[in-house]
Amino acid sequence: MDAKIVGWGHTKFGRLAGQTFENLVLEAGAAALNHAGIDPAEIDAIWLGHFNSGLVPDGFASSLALGLDDALRFKPATRVENACASGSAAIYAARDAIRSGRVKAALVIGAEKMTAKDTAGVTEALAGASYQAEEAGVSFPQIFARFATAYFQTYGDRSSALARIAAKNHANALANPMAQMRKDVGFEFCNTVSEKNPMIAAPLRMTDCSLISDGAAALIMVADDRAGDFANSIAFRAAEQVNDYLPMSRRDLLAFEGPAEAFRRAYGKAGLGVGDLSFAEVHDCFTIAELLVYEAMGLVPRGAGARAIDEGMVNRDGRLPVNLSGGLKAKGHPVGATGVSMHVLAAMQLTGQAGEMQLPGAELGCVFNMGGSGVANYCSILEAERAA
Amino acid sequence: MDAKIVGWGHTKFGRLAGQTFENLVLEAGAAALNHAGIDPAEIDAIWLGHFNSGLVPDGFASSLALGLDDALRFKPATRVENACASGSAAIYAARDAIRSGRVKAALVIGAEKMTAKDTAGVTEALAGASYQAEEAGVSFPQIFARFATAYFQTYGDRSSALARIAAKNHANALANPMAQMRKDVGFEFCNTVSEKNPMIAAPLRMTDCSLISDGAAALIMVADDRAGDFANSIAFRAAEQVNDYLPMSRRDLLAFEGPAEAFRRAYGKAGLGVGDLSFAEVHDCFTIAELLVYEAMGLVPRGAGARAIDEGMVNRDGRLPVNLSGGLKAKGHPVGATGVSMHVLAAMQLTGQAGEMQLPGAELGCVFNMGGSGVANYCSILEAERAA
Repeated sequence: MDAKIVGWGHTKFGRLAGQTFENLVLEAGAAALNHAGIDPAEIDAIWLGHFNSGLVPDGFASSLALGLDDALRFKPATRVENACASGSAAIYAARDAIRSGRVKAALVIGAEKMTAKDTAGVTEALAGASYQAEEAGVSFPQIFARFATAYFQTYGDRSSALARIAAKNHANALANPMAQMRKDVGFEFCNTVSEKNPMIAAPLRMTDCSLISDGAAALIMVADDRAGDFANSIAFRAAEQVNDYLPMSRRDLLAFEGPAEAFRRAYGKAGLGVGDLSFAEVHDCFTIAELLVYEAMGLVPRGAGARAIDEGMVNRDGRLPVNLSGGLKAKGHPVGATGVSMHVLAAMQLTGQAGEMQLPGAELGCVFNMGGSGVANYCSILEAERAA
Repeated sequence: MDAKIVGWGHTKFGRLAGQTFENLVLEAGAAALNHAGIDPAEIDAIWLGHFNSGLVPDGFASSLALGLDDALRFKPATRVENACASGSAAIYAARDAIRSGRVKAALVIGAEKMTAKDTAGVTEALAGASYQAEEAGVSFPQIFARFATAYFQTYGDRSSALARIAAKNHANALANPMAQMRKDVGFEFCNTVSEKNPMIAAPLRMTDCSLISDGAAALIMVADDRAGDFANSIAFRAAEQVNDYLPMSRRDLLAFEGPAEAFRRAYGKAGLGVGDLSFAEVHDCFTIAELLVYEAMGLVPRGAGARAIDEGMVNRDGRLPVNLSGGLKAKGHPVGATGVSMHVLAAMQLTGQAGEMQLPGAELGCVFNMGGSGVANYCSILEAERAA
């Protein structure tokens, strides 16, 4: 028994001034029910991936999705949280319940409303996702700046590679109608510190940072003995979660050990290697994170992350296109939604439903979603069994 | 395949000035590992039940438990939240994972640090667990005062029954060394509005409200094919979760429909009725909640909740002793810990390890843990298979 993805929904990501958190949950949920063509009465349970931590006043959001349909009343609904990997955490919880036999069909929603706060307020809320006993007052740009600084000290300045990653993801987002920023800003802009591209936390510039976003994404997952009823069916060849110590002081910043371990386990479970993947959606909360993921996923050796972008390996026409959606960098990063969004984007690619983003012949998709700085790590390898 | 409880730990509940949130997590986790006698290397995954919502600055706590032992590094760790039922939500998530076959042994911790804030700050944080679009600014005492007011208008003033519930739970807590308040305050004190027992939200007095607490509790759960290795083994005869609409405006305040549905399903799953239970630990966040639970669990008919306490049915020597631990009222209510604590207390009773709280011949224990005002409802029926 395993869980299959049979439908999905995705709101636009961006500064959605007219949308409340509840609206986003309901819009994505309704879209997923509709896309799967499933009767809400057949949904056995609901999971919500949502970070919150003060971004919105709603402190207890699991039951909001029951508002989608009267048939959902009395269904179990549970919020799952693992910082910026809360969306994947919700998917993995639903998968456990389906594999246990308790649940035959699940609705999984990831959502976040971030722009209700100003940038300082968002930065402060997100900073709660670090180790307060040692890292209180350190912002996430500053945390990833420490990774970049340590990396540059060991391997040399890789600022231009980071700018290339940003430029690639911005260019990719042109093809994604759900993306927050659809503007090809270009390598030169990303590589130059300017009034419009200031240094946020040296060596990370504004273009090295992902966006502050509102948005939601949703999946319908069913037990495989029900999957035959649906037009689309996507299997988990692997779904591995690896958590690492929260304090940065206990981790080797260059090794990105938690992410590397998640990829290692996922490849082992799926019985394949990085060379078998058609594409990957990975967690580029900061460009340095995407560069470190190139190494963690085994695309290039330790210390050689820049080669992956400089030699075009991760471009649309490269051997492993990374973040065809535009990534967190340009698609946007409503934190609780991100993991679900990544799985939705992969499902779209694998079923030929990715529109202008579509990669011809996509067969195996990899999703890597991360909470904190390599603390909660989720690696899924997805494969379509049937496409509408 | 099902999950069995094979060990547990429980910190003292109270105003624990010297204890951080992390300390509480580690203390309860270590106690549970020790009680089960399990090697940390054998733990496959960790779940944390934790409400937070600003009670502490830690916004991303799932991985803190990895600090218990180096062997826990890289194990999956996930936070689960359903307001004051977050502890049960973590237990149920672990059970799904064990029943799926993915996990053979799990560490589940529920924890909350509430006294880092003053009472106004705690009240504000907890108020986030209501429906913000309609109920913003309404405190939880005020929410349960609405239940009490509606109930009294229909069935008559039941203030003295509420005072008797408070007095019972305070008296029970005398036998619980982990309880926050171990003082037999007596019925007269609870039934009289005074300077020391002021009206908090009419008709609820101070003694009708549970406590603001720090604390943690933990369980070790294993797959039944491993349970034979442990001295204690407790089975879930039922574990049912029922969520109801978040807005109070969509619910019948007198019917307590979500809780009633959870009990109905649990009895159905276990193949038994309320008369078969030896004892129950139920969610007395306010005394009116315990009274409504008497009805929801079928101990007495709708509208007759006061009879259960007035006639002594729920006393230690009654036909169904309720909250032998002292309940949230006197044991304390560190919200994320509460659901785990209730399961621990039930496990202690069922294995003859409840000390002065022990009910002779306890065979079937019921736990009812609730998030919000009957929104997230968890009903477990537990039975010991083997006791050390």
